[in-house]
Amino acid sequence: MEMALEAAEKHPARLYTLGPLIHNPQAVEFLGGLGVKVKNRIESIPEGTVIFRSHGVSLKDLKKAKEKKLHIIDATCPIVKKAHFFANYLDRHGYALLIVGDAYHPEVEAIRSYLKGEVEVVDNVEAVYRLGPWEKLGIIAQTTQSFNLFKEIVTTSLEKAKEVRVFNTICHATTIRQKEAVEIARKVECMIVIGGYNSGNTQRLAAICREIQPSTYQVETARELNPKWLAKKGKIGLTAGASTPSWIIKEVESEIRRLKSL
Amino acid sequence: MEMALEAAEKHPARLYTLGPLIHNPQAVEFLGGLGVKVKNRIESIPEGTVIFRSHGVSLKDLKKAKEKKLHIIDATCPIVKKAHFFANYLDRHGYALLIVGDAYHPEVEAIRSYLKGEVEVVDNVEAVYRLGPWEKLGIIAQTTQSFNLFKEIVTTSLEKAKEVRVFNTICHATTIRQKEAVEIARKVECMIVIGGYNSGNTQRLAAICREIQPSTYQVETARELNPKWLAKKGKIGLTAGASTPSWIIKEVESEIRRLKSL
Repeated sequence: MEMALEAAEKHPARLYTLGPLIHNPQAVEFLGGLGVKVKNRIESIPEGTVIFRSHGVSLKDLKKAKEKKLHIIDATCPIVKKAHFFANYLDRHGYALLIVGDAYHPEVEAIRSYLKGEVEVVDNVEAVYRLGPWEKLGIIAQTTQSFNLFKEIVTTSLEKAKEVRVFNTICHATTIRQKEAVEIARKVECMIVIGGYNSGNTQRLAAICREIQPSTYQVETARELNPKWLAKKGKIGLTAGASTPSWIIKEVESEIRRLKSL
Repeated sequence: MEMALEAAEKHPARLYTLGPLIHNPQAVEFLGGLGVKVKNRIESIPEGTVIFRSHGVSLKDLKKAKEKKLHIIDATCPIVKKAHFFANYLDRHGYALLIVGDAYHPEVEAIRSYLKGEVEVVDNVEAVYRLGPWEKLGIIAQTTQSFNLFKEIVTTSLEKAKEVRVFNTICHATTIRQKEAVEIARKVECMIVIGGYNSGNTQRLAAICREIQPSTYQVETARELNPKWLAKKGKIGLTAGASTPSWIIKEVESEIRRLKSL
């Protein structure tokens, strides 16, 4: 996000992002105001500068951007880059690869596009039973995946492979955020999760909280807060997805305080 | 066992085993009748032939046997040899090593004696929480360990290590035996487990069955069967540890049939 803002200042015109920069509509709108255009296909970018967003970019798009001689600003998250590195390492060393994640998430699509060997993307334990057996199995995760699902899939895969080599590529901040959200959810009577409806990690955060506290609600902005949710409730808990800008979090917090004081 | 019998025929005198050849007193007694002597320390073997039993032998004992110029018959189980191979491989490649097993079991003691780096032997999940964290963690298991414990320890270790590399060294026959024993225990009203009281894998088998069917009894021989266990019971289930000779199993089976027909 900071990188994109800097770029927007330096390259006021002909600045594009390939897909929305982050899974947060309000942040994307804000960038739009600065003249940054969102294009979903590299073919639609005629010239100028392209920002590769935090999710990373596929091999095909990387090649096309180079062919078109676009100026590239690579804002791929360093944690995502690490996941790329370990996926490629395992692939090169003859491991069949399991990626714990959502097959259609751009991060996973990008990671997958660089691999030459056998790759499977799984988001549930049952799927593992239908795969394998393997001699050598490598496992990594989409960086914002649930750590518990990751652990369950590793455990299950042990029944199907002689060697299992696991790199924990889950973003530590994501794991901590999930753990903290669970602890908060345990102590409150209502839980608000802030983040884009198109953000996988925000949805997972909401799902994890809802298991503990059924009165859990997801909002994208302060305006969506429903006073009825907060009425007659004691402590209210608050958490936000990885890509939620801090100004949105602050707005939601203020609005909750205002509504509670009425 | 077959190997040892063959050796006993070829080398009728001066034939020793280092420790009881297998964890089954009746089988050891039988070999004693053939002139095979059990010595617990290599120092007590003056000359002649030494049989390294299925559990394998420590580096120290191997060196001493060579120094003494004893003739060596290596009856180490091939599955145990594989565990040695993977433990050494991980050790050589800079992995801290977790061995899922009993620290004082001769198999584990032997595997451990060849390793140069950090090694920990764990037989419960809680122990893992007190260890680490690690950058690179390798995990193997004593060949007759419970697969469930192995899985739980791998899962737990994921919280403590960035890379976890697992070789499943559990004897497939042991895993199958445990699974089958559980299925049998579910269908019967009394479960008999045959095997040496000093056999770890037999004890584990009995413990696993007892969780399903509280009326589970371990015996070493047919003589130990108590008619009261079988009285007023429907189907009786039967299983045996890895080192239980088939003639003992057959004797127990006949005795159960005899007692049930009374």
